[in-house]
Amino acid sequence: MVPRKVYLEDIPLDEASRRFEAALAAADGLGPIGPERVPVAEALGRVTAAPVWASISSPHYHGAAMDGAAVRAENALGASEASPVRLRLGAQAFWVDTGDPLPPDTNAVIMLEHIQSFGEQIEIMAPVAPWQHVRSMGEDIVATELVLPEGKMLGPVDLGAAAACGCTHVEVRRRPRVAIMPTGTELVEPGPDVKPGQIIEFNSLMLASQISEWGGAPCRLPVTPDDYPLLKQRIETALGDHDVVVVNAGSSAGSEDFTARIVAELGDLLVHGVAVRPGHPVILELFVRPLLFRLLGSAPPERPRMQATITRKVLSPMGEDEYLRVKLGKVGNRVTATPLQRGAGVIMSLVRADGITLIPRFSEGLHAGTEITVELLRGPEEIERTIVAIGSHDLTLDLLSSELSKRHRGLTLSSSNVGSLGGLIALQRGEAHLSGSHLLDEESGEYNVTYVRRYLAGRPILLVNLAYREQGLIVPRGNPKRIGGLEDLLRPDVQFVNRQKGAGTRVLLDYRLKQMGVDPLQINGYTREEFTHLMVAASVAGGTADTGLGILAAARALRLDFVPLLKERYDLVVPREHYESELLRPLLEIVRGPDFRRQVEALGGYDTSQMGEVVGEVNA
Amino acid sequence: MVPRKVYLEDIPLDEASRRFEAALAAADGLGPIGPERVPVAEALGRVTAAPVWASISSPHYHGAAMDGAAVRAENALGASEASPVRLRLGAQAFWVDTGDPLPPDTNAVIMLEHIQSFGEQIEIMAPVAPWQHVRSMGEDIVATELVLPEGKMLGPVDLGAAAACGCTHVEVRRRPRVAIMPTGTELVEPGPDVKPGQIIEFNSLMLASQISEWGGAPCRLPVTPDDYPLLKQRIETALGDHDVVVVNAGSSAGSEDFTARIVAELGDLLVHGVAVRPGHPVILELFVRPLLFRLLGSAPPERPRMQATITRKVLSPMGEDEYLRVKLGKVGNRVTATPLQRGAGVIMSLVRADGITLIPRFSEGLHAGTEITVELLRGPEEIERTIVAIGSHDLTLDLLSSELSKRHRGLTLSSSNVGSLGGLIALQRGEAHLSGSHLLDEESGEYNVTYVRRYLAGRPILLVNLAYREQGLIVPRGNPKRIGGLEDLLRPDVQFVNRQKGAGTRVLLDYRLKQMGVDPLQINGYTREEFTHLMVAASVAGGTADTGLGILAAARALRLDFVPLLKERYDLVVPREHYESELLRPLLEIVRGPDFRRQVEALGGYDTSQMGEVVGEVNA
Repeated sequence: MVPRKVYLEDIPLDEASRRFEAALAAADGLGPIGPERVPVAEALGRVTAAPVWASISSPHYHGAAMDGAAVRAENALGASEASPVRLRLGAQAFWVDTGDPLPPDTNAVIMLEHIQSFGEQIEIMAPVAPWQHVRSMGEDIVATELVLPEGKMLGPVDLGAAAACGCTHVEVRRRPRVAIMPTGTELVEPGPDVKPGQIIEFNSLMLASQISEWGGAPCRLPVTPDDYPLLKQRIETALGDHDVVVVNAGSSAGSEDFTARIVAELGDLLVHGVAVRPGHPVILELFVRPLLFRLLGSAPPERPRMQATITRKVLSPMGEDEYLRVKLGKVGNRVTATPLQRGAGVIMSLVRADGITLIPRFSEGLHAGTEITVELLRGPEEIERTIVAIGSHDLTLDLLSSELSKRHRGLTLSSSNVGSLGGLIALQRGEAHLSGSHLLDEESGEYNVTYVRRYLAGRPILLVNLAYREQGLIVPRGNPKRIGGLEDLLRPDVQFVNRQKGAGTRVLLDYRLKQMGVDPLQINGYTREEFTHLMVAASVAGGTADTGLGILAAARALRLDFVPLLKERYDLVVPREHYESELLRPLLEIVRGPDFRRQVEALGGYDTSQMGEVVGEVNA
Repeated sequence: MVPRKVYLEDIPLDEASRRFEAALAAADGLGPIGPERVPVAEALGRVTAAPVWASISSPHYHGAAMDGAAVRAENALGASEASPVRLRLGAQAFWVDTGDPLPPDTNAVIMLEHIQSFGEQIEIMAPVAPWQHVRSMGEDIVATELVLPEGKMLGPVDLGAAAACGCTHVEVRRRPRVAIMPTGTELVEPGPDVKPGQIIEFNSLMLASQISEWGGAPCRLPVTPDDYPLLKQRIETALGDHDVVVVNAGSSAGSEDFTARIVAELGDLLVHGVAVRPGHPVILELFVRPLLFRLLGSAPPERPRMQATITRKVLSPMGEDEYLRVKLGKVGNRVTATPLQRGAGVIMSLVRADGITLIPRFSEGLHAGTEITVELLRGPEEIERTIVAIGSHDLTLDLLSSELSKRHRGLTLSSSNVGSLGGLIALQRGEAHLSGSHLLDEESGEYNVTYVRRYLAGRPILLVNLAYREQGLIVPRGNPKRIGGLEDLLRPDVQFVNRQKGAGTRVLLDYRLKQMGVDPLQINGYTREEFTHLMVAASVAGGTADTGLGILAAARALRLDFVPLLKERYDLVVPREHYESELLRPLLEIVRGPDFRRQVEALGGYDTSQMGEVVGEVNA
């Protein structure tokens, strides 16, 4: 037996892969797993365990490709309307329908149009080349030839071909059985009612689906709490009837260490920690996927690649390989890649990602404007049919995105939240088709125009109103302190929570306070800043503040109450060249249609009276 | 009710699609089909029937991202090793483990390394920014926001996201139920024992698999013979419990007309015949696929495209749209597209095809060298990892192809049969990496060298022997006429069948007859020419000839006997630049290894004594 080694440090990815590969190569029986024989009709997506050879030729006989008379071509030489050739039926010529086998010693079919019939004889009025209008035996494939190689994942045409060549069954690899064991006392099943400290266990669900897509048979085991003997016993049991056991340790400190210890006790712990970011989903792709395809004796399909320009500077730790998820957009002729959030558990980054790029471990990161190679998670044509919105986020944009996908299949709206100003800068750099914006000019009280003029000088821009959005005071359920307006913020018993400087909500608040002639510093908590609507709502929900200014959706998200107070204009800022493009036309149509208006009104918290109207033209 | 119209002519594809679309748009209930609610864990590959909104935020609470102490960042301002900041445990600081919820009024976590503990108090030796080492509520997604739009086909990460946002179930489209009815008296189930005139029904198998891949629920019905009342009754029954019924008529004349008549009787016959080539598989893709995605309310994924140069002239009928299947190869820097066989039932063309190109109906075809756009059926990276062999075909090449795929996953050998001379011309034009060749110089008795010198003048070429191949006399089972050698061909009771002029086998025969001093015209049947080994074997099997010269595999394909007579050298002709390339190295290694040699010997009919040896260098 190989001596057991324990490695406790994070090691580089390539070294980890090398150890893993070496251990697999050394292990007996870790080549492709055993074959099984399945009916062709049930073999879709399976991998051949042996080459498939043709048992019969296709076609398996010389057959007529037309209705007409089968003849020997040499006998019809020189036939024409002027000098037809006479042939005896039953000896030199034979009536055939399409698909009929050719009678012996015939090698061509004369079309009915070129034949006159005279009882026992026919007259042929056109010559024919040997094998004309004949589907000759083996034209497609000859018996004994290769139909499908070993190690091929079977698609619909492969099944058709195997059947056409006389196969009723094929030898395929058994599906590798993969047990997936989530561990961690803090993990709970998905559901809407989770408590702080509980973490929804969704990794096993995602991995099981991936295993299915890769051709394996996944088995999700229930969550095992951080209990050493229980975990060990369950791993041993799982090893008994699975080809692979994946233990996905929770985030709590104990859980990962238990697993490593048990692996070392039951077998060889090759690696404990790999210097790669982010964690779980990447590790699974990098190790489980090739292992599975190895067991299947097949090659994992490669993803298509595309060149793109990174839009923002990305710092990446030296000493770690980082797989960075990006959103791609084609604006004009340039493909841009915008980095997404980078945490391990950031599931929405995976949903939003169009591709992945590797920042290798001896790099400190990427400068903005660097040309990178992106492995695509969607087809390149989907990226071309994506409308890129970068700017302030709003729920109506989500709704618009869903409506667009639903009504114009294949067209998507990709929306990134970087705030209104960030959106204008993205437009300036040519990284977006449009930008959601609600920038109030404190001097004029006007929305967006001043800022667009400043940031997008000289470019013709249209402002299309999406909605007026209600901002209001987020208060605890039942509004126990009876807060009814901004004047209540001055009350000594009211603790306020503010947004950070520069946020649209903060600008709006300051504008109104100035109109009201109120000194902001009289408000308890005016200097306490939070960065998002939801964080404001969370402070109210947690009881550390009585109220804060924000949008209805944030109050709803935490089941709080809402006192509507102010309206702000939320526009789409659209450069004229995109406004007039084919790509944006369907989106503008939806914004101007009655259905979408009704849906936005149903959300609550919006005034749609100017929805879809061009409320401003700048640099026209 | 709409009056029933019957169209009997073939109409252009775009007109047919227009009618089809219009009829679907007019029909009530032909939007997306009804939704059903399924557990998230069972929703892989399904299409959302409604947007999925987050029920909870992710994370759903502010949680510690590190083990340490939760504090309010403002309280740790200016902390350093020189002047640490003291905080009271339980009031200003709280011990937390990774994943723990942040206590109220804290907004950052100090790492353990920066903390000294003193009973009731801790000392902090480094400052922390607000929200540092915290996974803040809604960082990934905020409750009420859009997780997944309507009309999205669900992949593994989508399921993970839905679960992470508190969903246990999702609304998805019911899988469209598609009945597939093959019709035609000549159709039989797949199997090795089919009689001339019987046609193996494999289209329903292929279509059913495609329907599954597209997200539908296929149901293959048994073959219906050409029996009008039976067919009508079965179609009516199928319509009762399916969303779509596809009737796939056999090739016999009656079968298609029955179907059209029944459709016209039961509903509206919109189109009877579309001017498009080839038939069945293309029609199915063009009409059934979009219909299915329409029912699912989702967009069919588009295929990637690639530019390529067509290698041969292709004539295409004016008035018909033709979807031409091509093999792609990258030799040097050029991607070439070689047209495959074009018949409707030519299933191996589908297996061999790397892509499809459209020749529109007002075009007469393509000139050799035309740049075309190809829709890819495989990934572009697979095409880069394909070794292109064009030339004479041999079973050992099939075996080599299978071995290569098996041992070097992702690497393929694509082999096209155009004969030895055609192969040298392909090499000349830079369309292949290597060419299988067995060209005998009748003057010198030498193989390949003379021809390579003539066709590939000036280019350094290596001849790598693959095997010596036995040619022999193919005779009926049991060899009733006791044919033992070429001298028997002179017997008056022996009827011979020959190969066409230029075929390697014919050259070999003529060379030996000359050596023997025999006048070929003394042989009965010497002037009767067939085009392939299999056609020669078929003549023997059909009884119209007693024997012909060919290879063992052809005799085996029709279960005939074989009298080995002559050996011919079968070489791989490889230009030096490819011989030395990384791409070909694995292939040459296999040819030189003992495993492959054993497998070829097991085939029978081969002499492998020089397998893998460089048997000639030309223009070195």
